[in-house]
Amino acid sequence: MTVARINRISEFEGKTVQLNGWVYNSRRSGKIGFLMFRDGFGIMQCIVAKNDVGEEAFEVFKSLTQESSLSVVGEVVKNDRAPGGFEMVVSELMVHQLSSEYPITPKEHGTDFLMNHRHLWLRSKRQHAILKVRHEIIKAVRDFFDSNDFTLCDSPIFTPNAAEGTSTLFGTDYFGNTAFLAQTGQLYGEAAAMAVGRHYNFGPTFRAEKSKTRRHLTEFWMVEPEIAYCEIDENMNWAERLILFIIERVLENRKNELDVLERDLGKLEHIKAPFPRLSYTECVELLNKGGINFTWGDDFGAPEETFIGEQFNQPVMVHRFPTAIKAFYMKRDPENEKVVLGMDVLAPEGFGEIIGGSERETEINLLEDRIKDEELNQADYEWFLDLRRYGSVPHSGFGMGIERVVAWICNLPHVRETIPFPRTIGRLNP
Amino acid sequence: MTVARINRISEFEGKTVQLNGWVYNSRRSGKIGFLMFRDGFGIMQCIVAKNDVGEEAFEVFKSLTQESSLSVVGEVVKNDRAPGGFEMVVSELMVHQLSSEYPITPKEHGTDFLMNHRHLWLRSKRQHAILKVRHEIIKAVRDFFDSNDFTLCDSPIFTPNAAEGTSTLFGTDYFGNTAFLAQTGQLYGEAAAMAVGRHYNFGPTFRAEKSKTRRHLTEFWMVEPEIAYCEIDENMNWAERLILFIIERVLENRKNELDVLERDLGKLEHIKAPFPRLSYTECVELLNKGGINFTWGDDFGAPEETFIGEQFNQPVMVHRFPTAIKAFYMKRDPENEKVVLGMDVLAPEGFGEIIGGSERETEINLLEDRIKDEELNQADYEWFLDLRRYGSVPHSGFGMGIERVVAWICNLPHVRETIPFPRTIGRLNP
Repeated sequence: MTVARINRISEFEGKTVQLNGWVYNSRRSGKIGFLMFRDGFGIMQCIVAKNDVGEEAFEVFKSLTQESSLSVVGEVVKNDRAPGGFEMVVSELMVHQLSSEYPITPKEHGTDFLMNHRHLWLRSKRQHAILKVRHEIIKAVRDFFDSNDFTLCDSPIFTPNAAEGTSTLFGTDYFGNTAFLAQTGQLYGEAAAMAVGRHYNFGPTFRAEKSKTRRHLTEFWMVEPEIAYCEIDENMNWAERLILFIIERVLENRKNELDVLERDLGKLEHIKAPFPRLSYTECVELLNKGGINFTWGDDFGAPEETFIGEQFNQPVMVHRFPTAIKAFYMKRDPENEKVVLGMDVLAPEGFGEIIGGSERETEINLLEDRIKDEELNQADYEWFLDLRRYGSVPHSGFGMGIERVVAWICNLPHVRETIPFPRTIGRLNP
Repeated sequence: MTVARINRISEFEGKTVQLNGWVYNSRRSGKIGFLMFRDGFGIMQCIVAKNDVGEEAFEVFKSLTQESSLSVVGEVVKNDRAPGGFEMVVSELMVHQLSSEYPITPKEHGTDFLMNHRHLWLRSKRQHAILKVRHEIIKAVRDFFDSNDFTLCDSPIFTPNAAEGTSTLFGTDYFGNTAFLAQTGQLYGEAAAMAVGRHYNFGPTFRAEKSKTRRHLTEFWMVEPEIAYCEIDENMNWAERLILFIIERVLENRKNELDVLERDLGKLEHIKAPFPRLSYTECVELLNKGGINFTWGDDFGAPEETFIGEQFNQPVMVHRFPTAIKAFYMKRDPENEKVVLGMDVLAPEGFGEIIGGSERETEINLLEDRIKDEELNQADYEWFLDLRRYGSVPHSGFGMGIERVVAWICNLPHVRETIPFPRTIGRLNP
């Protein structure tokens, strides 16, 4: 018997096939049973008629509980009124296991309860849809870079030092020494860009931030392109093209999932290049004009990011931040040394920063000064400084946090649903 | 001026373009300079004739040192004798930085020296070729699973417990508790497979093994598919198809890089399905017949793996291992409870195990027994046992270590060159 998958069921119209899966839910009207059947690839309505399957099998159907595992055999028929456009007329049922008292029922549950049952919660329609959109976004990111001649070079997680200070680092005993879990692969990415021209790394990243906000995870995935012979404007072009590519792919392939999530597609379809590009200083003016009291030199928080994003209903690219609030490796603006050639991308609809990047400092003496100013240990950075000793070139890059992009695209209020098994200050389970 | 990339240079035949990059090496014959120009995408010969560029620029050419950064402008011309089939007749040179005393010269260097300069060593032709093959393998793996309806669900790195015992785990302080760095995502993968049918995770994995061998890293990348409604034979089919797909892709797209590595392509082209499938017991007989003294019940080491692999010149799939040497979650063979339905894939040419997997135990009482036998704490596994309480189904999966596959495909004697920044018991730098 051919085993079919629900996402490809249209290929089997008129044929008798087997489906392997679980009971999503079921109801009965006299001698006709309606089984919403979940196989992991999709959900399909299966019709179980007593006259078709016989009395014994119909009794089996009646005994089915939520998330019982079973296989069904039947004919695939077109039915425009059925969800997905097809249904199965079942001729045979084979139960693998009857579940009893599946914890997640169609009634409301609290967040903590659901998070404690995350291993089961993933089976629900909404979480399944988020997983699929996340997959699509990650695939789009990789396809984008791969098709533009970027080379993936995985950066190490175990690192002997800290790119941006040690306060938010997780450490581990490394055979008698301390290794820190990388919170960025950027310094390694710069080395790779000098070897391969266009580089990206894409992996989990760790921050021991004590922030309990709806935007923070202790473990999250980040993609970081780094490009040799690339200045800040081209860097912003890459960020813009990447975002457009992601949205195009998601709209092309995941409209069903966005429907499940009740996402307003118009807001995504509306996203168009060129994205507004504003300097930090222009943003400060915009904030003050908008009645938000903000002092030049401070870092934007969520309220400022939301305000700026809301003025445009497009991703906004903010550039040229105060030197003092940005990392030591950012290049100072040759026209104004109070600012660096950093750039952030703020998502619309209040989703805040999704990308942070910059053109990098190429001059070794300026880097050495900044390392001293920030009270970092220069010896830790000698290998990194080698990149400025041997064939230094203009280069730029950025990091994009995947979970924040998933939150934006899916319109989720909290990042905890954007990753299969979220880790926050209060959660290490399951 | 159009900036071209060397990997796409054939598109620019007869045109004048700019290249941005570095000096790979250079030599001179009277008034003609030969510049091997590296742009990260490839290496191309550039002809710098005094008559074309003028006296001043020719002096600049003469001053160029290894890994100096520069841009060149010139006409792209076909030349079948040039490496890559094209060369550039340079009309203009723009130097960005002259390198002095680049540490990695064409002479021989010791491994430790090269590893200490890994951030620069990546620029060499051989390391560049390995990076490209690694990229291709990773892309092939992801494309394979994506195109077969697998859903990527990233498994967490921070975990509260250990899938296979705690002896080789790295730990970190997690806000007052201990989090362990995952050495497999498998248990989470099983949960995901019940949600999405076919799942894979692909990320860095950590083992605090004190092994100083040519096959061990403390940090390595692993892909782990997990498939609902899949038994051991189908599991072996997936492993076989994956390996064939990888080899096909690498041969299709990375022959140049394999040439640089002087890889014997015939040995890869020779790989064909079906791969030999032998039970562990059959392997023991084979070993004993071959004069290798080996007792049923012991685990294979490198010499046994090499011997078995060498009998076939194909990847060999070994299945049905002694229960006692395998993890608690492997399903016992219904026909012989002394063995479990585990399977390993051994690469040919002595490269040893590249895949380990199994059909998983579906019966909760058998799992509970094994957890007790192994003296694991059942409370840590309650969430995992939920997968057997609610809709348990036959399922299987495996893990493939990327670095070992790269070592095999590139024919590298040691895994340390298979990853951009290797981490071993003795190395955490750069």
